[in-house]
Amino acid sequence: MQINISQEGEKIKKEFEEAPAEKKQIIDSELRQDIVTGDWVVIATGRAKRPEDFSRAEYSTQKLADHLDSDGCLFCDPKESGQEKDVLIYSKSDGDWTLKVFPNKYPAFSRGKVPRSLEEGPYFAMTGTGYHEVIVSRDHFKHIPDLEIIEVAEIIDAFQDRYLELMKKKSVNYITIFHNFGKEAGASIAHPHSQLIAIPVISPYIKQELDGAELYYKSLRKCVYCEMAEYEGMAKKRIVFENETFIAFCPFASRSAFEIWIMPKKHNSYFERITDEEKIKLAEVLKNSLGAIKKTINNTPYNFYIHTSPCDGKDYRRYHWHIEILPHTSTWAGFELETGIEISMIQPEEAARALRENLNNN
Amino acid sequence: MQINISQEGEKIKKEFEEAPAEKKQIIDSELRQDIVTGDWVVIATGRAKRPEDFSRAEYSTQKLADHLDSDGCLFCDPKESGQEKDVLIYSKSDGDWTLKVFPNKYPAFSRGKVPRSLEEGPYFAMTGTGYHEVIVSRDHFKHIPDLEIIEVAEIIDAFQDRYLELMKKKSVNYITIFHNFGKEAGASIAHPHSQLIAIPVISPYIKQELDGAELYYKSLRKCVYCEMAEYEGMAKKRIVFENETFIAFCPFASRSAFEIWIMPKKHNSYFERITDEEKIKLAEVLKNSLGAIKKTINNTPYNFYIHTSPCDGKDYRRYHWHIEILPHTSTWAGFELETGIEISMIQPEEAARALRENLNNN
Repeated sequence: MQINISQEGEKIKKEFEEAPAEKKQIIDSELRQDIVTGDWVVIATGRAKRPEDFSRAEYSTQKLADHLDSDGCLFCDPKESGQEKDVLIYSKSDGDWTLKVFPNKYPAFSRGKVPRSLEEGPYFAMTGTGYHEVIVSRDHFKHIPDLEIIEVAEIIDAFQDRYLELMKKKSVNYITIFHNFGKEAGASIAHPHSQLIAIPVISPYIKQELDGAELYYKSLRKCVYCEMAEYEGMAKKRIVFENETFIAFCPFASRSAFEIWIMPKKHNSYFERITDEEKIKLAEVLKNSLGAIKKTINNTPYNFYIHTSPCDGKDYRRYHWHIEILPHTSTWAGFELETGIEISMIQPEEAARALRENLNNN
Repeated sequence: MQINISQEGEKIKKEFEEAPAEKKQIIDSELRQDIVTGDWVVIATGRAKRPEDFSRAEYSTQKLADHLDSDGCLFCDPKESGQEKDVLIYSKSDGDWTLKVFPNKYPAFSRGKVPRSLEEGPYFAMTGTGYHEVIVSRDHFKHIPDLEIIEVAEIIDAFQDRYLELMKKKSVNYITIFHNFGKEAGASIAHPHSQLIAIPVISPYIKQELDGAELYYKSLRKCVYCEMAEYEGMAKKRIVFENETFIAFCPFASRSAFEIWIMPKKHNSYFERITDEEKIKLAEVLKNSLGAIKKTINNTPYNFYIHTSPCDGKDYRRYHWHIEILPHTSTWAGFELETGIEISMIQPEEAARALRENLNNN
């Protein structure tokens, strides 16, 4: 990134090694395929122990997340706490770090050269080969809405850096980048952090979107996401925030109340091609969108993630990368689990209006 | 049902009316379609009020579920509490009720004759026409594992009764039947109950399974579910419980730890064709499976639901109805929401072993 960050700071980059030490943390990770739907699940048996550990009250993640204080925080000094091994460090000119990237101590995927296939009866599985990293910003108490735009851009820059590095690996065909805020959204450590998981398979949700975008193009000769971005920009009723480069809006078919999608206005299939200028623009929209959620629904936990084209070398020019922000405003119960149809209790138009009223312009 | 229940009891059946009173409860319900994926969401704005109501702490459902006591329970005397209007009542010969079915007071779908389509720009939606009912067993403290087999069979009988009634409606193309146990699984009322929602669209998860079963049949000339049931019965490693008619096992590609599927051993596409004898057999397997979950993972919240063929009049002979039980053993965080790939922390083989050890044979 050729902008302010790198001018004021020094970036130390180290190639991650194929650390065998990592494998001690995880007994086994398997990708198993559902023979009906073709969907994948991960069986990662590294973290949990006995059946009793699965009961709600025993959740280790919940216990960790209750640890909101910075005292003894594993990510405030990841080196000291034994979290950090091989690290990508962004630092200020005074040598102090601003952002670190390191392998997840409890990875859902194990590092390795090539996924090995495993078969049993009619079923198919493969070894859960992949990379699982954590992206940690410095301040224990400052979440994305509280950071400066330039600091948010630094996080996006780290996403791109790691993406470009990991997409080269032979076993990697898709790279997921996501952020969990709050205990109920699965954040097991309160210190602000994002995660990156590089996997050998194309995930079902992405596949569905790739297929949908392809189909839409075939019948209407237009990118379905460009269509949406244009229409929302014109209709204005669901916009939360926009600048020249990105638009943030509550999607027409919102799955959760106050859901927001952030989309580049210009067609672009690949997140990893984001320019330095675009990072600043995206940082502005992301900070404002999350800030509006924070103010409107009282610090409700949320997840956001990047949906982008696979990096398996195929052509995905009909796809359009974007970010989806999903606040945890409801519990998935029987109906949603059975059908995949989510029930949202507020009209996206109403949600967008409320979010717009709570935009911080700092 | 021609078995013990109806011999010892009397069943009073009343046609549900198209109650206009219901509409006062729900301002609006809309089914909106995602233009990329074709998936549906429901926007049901009847329950919530202001944006602040969406923040975690304010969850009205959570407040209700904390109400574990039977004092003032809305379902212990649904008539008194104003929950019950038109009702299907199962009662014992002494006139006391054992099971009631009535419309949900806060339905996600509004009753009406025909769904009306709504368009906006590139988007498509329709009125959320449907039926939403609650099936309540009598005892406030007895959940399915604590009931007698015959009492569980009565619940299954009520599912079938209502299914057969609602499938006749013109606007109904799919009927979902599900059960939420515990607050985290979305049970807003502690009193044991199941729910039924009859909707005009085929849900994405069912569509995926229908397509998968069709595809498997086309290439291997066999029902994929029969294949699974046979293999699991032979391999034995993932079985939880079985009798002559049904098999319960932890699926090879389990999405959550301790997930169980219950499947008729004989090919059958339509749940609503279940016989009285099969209901008793299913009740035995369901009671034992949920009992094993209760004992093994310490009363962890769970959902179960029936996956069966749509009732839109088309031919679904390649499909095989079954029940899926999903314990809430983890939180869906960024990775799962982004990819649709779930991470389970225990091997299904291990889970099944633990569950088998905790079977109650009462």
